[in-house]
Amino acid sequence: MARIVLKFGGTSVADLERIHNVAKHVKREHDAGHQVAVVVSAMAGKTNELVNWVQTMPKVAGSGGSFFDAREYDSIVASGEQVTSGLLAIALQSMGVDARSWLGWQIPVKTNNAHGAARIEDIDGTEIIKRMGNGQVAVVAGFQGIGPDKRISTLGRGGSDTSAVALAAALHADRCDIYTDVDGVYTTDPRIEPKACRLDRISFEEMLEMASLGAKVLQVRSVELAMVHGVKTFVRSSFDNPEEIDSSPDARPVGTLICDEDDIVEKQVVTGIAYARDESQISLRRVPDKPGVSASIFGPLAEEYVNVDMIVQSVSEDGSRTDMTFTVPDADLAKAIKVLEANREKIGYEIMQSDKGLVKVSVIGIGMRSHAGVAATAFNALAEKGINIRAITTSEIKFSVLLDSEYTELAVRTLHSVYGLDKVA
Amino acid sequence: MARIVLKFGGTSVADLERIHNVAKHVKREHDAGHQVAVVVSAMAGKTNELVNWVQTMPKVAGSGGSFFDAREYDSIVASGEQVTSGLLAIALQSMGVDARSWLGWQIPVKTNNAHGAARIEDIDGTEIIKRMGNGQVAVVAGFQGIGPDKRISTLGRGGSDTSAVALAAALHADRCDIYTDVDGVYTTDPRIEPKACRLDRISFEEMLEMASLGAKVLQVRSVELAMVHGVKTFVRSSFDNPEEIDSSPDARPVGTLICDEDDIVEKQVVTGIAYARDESQISLRRVPDKPGVSASIFGPLAEEYVNVDMIVQSVSEDGSRTDMTFTVPDADLAKAIKVLEANREKIGYEIMQSDKGLVKVSVIGIGMRSHAGVAATAFNALAEKGINIRAITTSEIKFSVLLDSEYTELAVRTLHSVYGLDKVA
Repeated sequence: MARIVLKFGGTSVADLERIHNVAKHVKREHDAGHQVAVVVSAMAGKTNELVNWVQTMPKVAGSGGSFFDAREYDSIVASGEQVTSGLLAIALQSMGVDARSWLGWQIPVKTNNAHGAARIEDIDGTEIIKRMGNGQVAVVAGFQGIGPDKRISTLGRGGSDTSAVALAAALHADRCDIYTDVDGVYTTDPRIEPKACRLDRISFEEMLEMASLGAKVLQVRSVELAMVHGVKTFVRSSFDNPEEIDSSPDARPVGTLICDEDDIVEKQVVTGIAYARDESQISLRRVPDKPGVSASIFGPLAEEYVNVDMIVQSVSEDGSRTDMTFTVPDADLAKAIKVLEANREKIGYEIMQSDKGLVKVSVIGIGMRSHAGVAATAFNALAEKGINIRAITTSEIKFSVLLDSEYTELAVRTLHSVYGLDKVA
Repeated sequence: MARIVLKFGGTSVADLERIHNVAKHVKREHDAGHQVAVVVSAMAGKTNELVNWVQTMPKVAGSGGSFFDAREYDSIVASGEQVTSGLLAIALQSMGVDARSWLGWQIPVKTNNAHGAARIEDIDGTEIIKRMGNGQVAVVAGFQGIGPDKRISTLGRGGSDTSAVALAAALHADRCDIYTDVDGVYTTDPRIEPKACRLDRISFEEMLEMASLGAKVLQVRSVELAMVHGVKTFVRSSFDNPEEIDSSPDARPVGTLICDEDDIVEKQVVTGIAYARDESQISLRRVPDKPGVSASIFGPLAEEYVNVDMIVQSVSEDGSRTDMTFTVPDADLAKAIKVLEANREKIGYEIMQSDKGLVKVSVIGIGMRSHAGVAATAFNALAEKGINIRAITTSEIKFSVLLDSEYTELAVRTLHSVYGLDKVA
């Protein structure tokens, strides 16, 4: 017997029939003798509809801006999960499973006061643990909590993953199962490389890099939280037939376990290849090479919430002037240019150049720590294919290259193959 | 300056544009210097959609029945008002009006534990009164409260009227304005009698009769509550142009004030004519005329929740056998017959007869108390038109006649005219 938190996203609860299917998954785990809590998102599309109403409303009022009260936003948007949690509880009851729904304020899931993007501060799991002990399934509305102002708060988009992991930590659960529309985490995007393999296990650190680099299986914050609390997180498919899955203690269901590095026996040098499109590169030429110049560039950008990613500073020839190159999301490029133009005198650059629509391809693996020359292999392989590298950044367990986006597929496939990740046909 | 509670129903908040229009009404009262709280329903159609999901869910599960957990039902269905209260608060804010939304559990609106049809037991108005004093508009989600089990409760259909009146009582409001899709209470249904007049004032007692007899302007429970707490309730149109309405203290806006009898200076003998279609008549012939026979008939019907309305017992010729005639809604007829057949021996009737699709027409007026012969006028007028009366019941301030439904319009118009209610052209 184990204590498990299951999480189902918006696609899995998109209509009554799918909610019924989710109930079958839950019943299966319950019938196998496990203590079960379920976290649900709103029906697919529902949150967008509500958000759209909130954003449209002030325009109707002629304010012209995008202002709205985040506390009202939270109260409105959190209603979506309120509906699905109730419906799933009813579906379970009608199958003979004792179940009740829990809203964020009922548990309570205490958050800070950052409405619209609140952080969970504390979850009181006492009552739910007691009821799980009596065989009751807790159906928890994801994405929501209650702030110190006693009003509903939401965790920001994708927050239901975070809800599930945080709940799993609070309930001292043995595992947090994230049911999603893919059956696990792959070595790379299977739409680009059909030879991509599902990973049996991946470490929290690696998953964090995969998630933040564009592998959209799990929200970054939920992985961080799982790592901090050591919550074993299992990514699996909600489209598998619930009646064909074995939930016994010895069963090995299909999916990917995100866990501590120590729990991974066979460590790979490279675990996966991730990519992120729609990157822009900005180069500031002939910037004075003196202390404080980085702050004069990145300070004003941060103030305007421009998300700067890769930063490469060239070594200057004579020690007086240098080139600074960095990337921002395409969506932030115009704003970034405006900020940099306004600060031209202060920064002291001579020329600003920019390119849109680039791609960042990253190679991730905890094995890099102990293996030299992993990056060199990639540079050679890309050069052989005639792919020009615009910029490189490295960290302990990954390195990234910035490329023209037309090379995305070729680069991903080349790297996937050169690190031996291709599925054996 | 006055303290006013405004209530807007589902049609008035059916989309963003209408919510914006509601905000204009609220702003107008706020700008006139009044302290304002607003109660809103869910968007028209939303509650039905949610209820339908709840009712469909167990069928998907193959239970076949209509079972569902009323606590889950409440949590799901209450989400509709959660959305509109937040949207209206945002609309008001964008017009420069300080506003915040309040959910039932936040105020709190304490109810009993009868989920799905809960009764309000207590509303703590302290915080809202304080904030209204500081110029903040309270936007309250109607129809909902919190039960002793700390879960969301709902008041049953049409409960937002009740929420508004109860809130007005708790806030010691000077008036409760019910904005609806008609501009007041009429002497009868204007679709049947175009000469119907809008009443300036009507007493609580009369309105109670009008409401329970099928004039669908206000929920019966809200009128009862208004009467008990002496809440002056003003029925007015939400479709009037909010910019053309005068909200100054001396203004006389268009609508009907439901108030204490003592506040009505010119009392009419007859205030209005109401009707209720879809009534069934059941007659039990030759029932033993002895103590306990009524209990043997109406006890079993009550146990099966059959709503019995008019009851007429004929005086028996020889004191041994009598006829009992009563009405039930058409929808309950089959059930009533089944119950009565099962209890045939116990009741001891010889023949049971029934007719469906009848109409009950009622004449209402507090002036009846002091005027004799009011009913006789009606009987004569109906007889002159050749309308046969199947049954009659009377009370202190109203009497009702049961008719074949084909005479509905003719009877309503005849009575409307004979009591001098016709509008002067």
